[in-house]
Amino acid sequence: MPRAEDGTKIPTEHRNPPRRRVESVVLVHTGDGKGKSTSAFGVVLRAVARDWPVAVVQFLKSGKWQVGEERVCRERLGVDWFAIGEGFTWESEDLSEDEAVAKAAWAHAKELIAAGRHRLVVLDEITYPIQWGWIDEADVLAAVRDRPGPVHVILTGRGASDALVDLADTVTEMRKVKHAYDTGVIAKKGIDY
Amino acid sequence: MPRAEDGTKIPTEHRNPPRRRVESVVLVHTGDGKGKSTSAFGVVLRAVARDWPVAVVQFLKSGKWQVGEERVCRERLGVDWFAIGEGFTWESEDLSEDEAVAKAAWAHAKELIAAGRHRLVVLDEITYPIQWGWIDEADVLAAVRDRPGPVHVILTGRGASDALVDLADTVTEMRKVKHAYDTGVIAKKGIDY
Repeated sequence: MPRAEDGTKIPTEHRNPPRRRVESVVLVHTGDGKGKSTSAFGVVLRAVARDWPVAVVQFLKSGKWQVGEERVCRERLGVDWFAIGEGFTWESEDLSEDEAVAKAAWAHAKELIAAGRHRLVVLDEITYPIQWGWIDEADVLAAVRDRPGPVHVILTGRGASDALVDLADTVTEMRKVKHAYDTGVIAKKGIDY
Repeated sequence: MPRAEDGTKIPTEHRNPPRRRVESVVLVHTGDGKGKSTSAFGVVLRAVARDWPVAVVQFLKSGKWQVGEERVCRERLGVDWFAIGEGFTWESEDLSEDEAVAKAAWAHAKELIAAGRHRLVVLDEITYPIQWGWIDEADVLAAVRDRPGPVHVILTGRGASDALVDLADTVTEMRKVKHAYDTGVIAKKGIDY
């Protein structure tokens, strides 16, 4: 099987596969470019347009990033938004704060997925705590694979693993061709955050 | 200068460039993967969160596609949305309907950009009518380059030209690693449209 620049496997394309209906799909947005989370929020817009209950779980502290999206998603679109460090409890004093928070976020996300109340669950930037060993990937894969039928899941973040790519129905790599930051342009409010 | 798979130039990265403020930026979302338009709509969400006036001009007929986003963007986010074939007039009977519509859409978009009333203007799927020769690329490049300072512009579609990549501040290639359609999965309402 061929591989992308970041090592992810590229499956062979079937040009005329038998058509099939699935109850829900798993999308992965990965790569070093912009648009992984942004594109997930675009799908949120689409899901809201269909009157679906939608949940977003953020796995990284966002600081000023995504604060605007969070507010608009909550207030105007009715999205259930779970931001790290807000509403999650620390379960152990032995773990670093970030690790504990990531574990709590995952415990919550796992319950959300299994509950089946949301038709779309976005696990934003979940690849990072997986890579850092804070969240057990096998547990994530099992929760996504064994989800209730109607629950679509989007996972975002760089470096999606082969196992995650295998599980997903659709995987897009956002590849940076050129970025304003590289020429010194300072992040723009309204565009970058 | 190195080139991406689709032929677009990859600029050399400057790791520590002098920091600079720009009034606005030009973003290009290209490539064969999902998420070019979706990601633009995600930026719309972010811009709306900053209370910016936002305009979207669609250059391809959407059919059922993006109808939901259009409604949510209009009704809940206050976006000015201009869909092809809706509100545009045919100027010539000699041209094919699509070509005339695309030209009218561009004439309208050009005015929108120049007017400076919107802080963000999305030119959705504009690369296609450019490639088909329906819209003059030099005219698009000039209108974007000479835009009023505060107007950010996002252009989406496959096959962004070298000239467009050169003009843009940030270019992301959405690359298909794997797509559900290739295994026969039928497009899902709420996820794909």
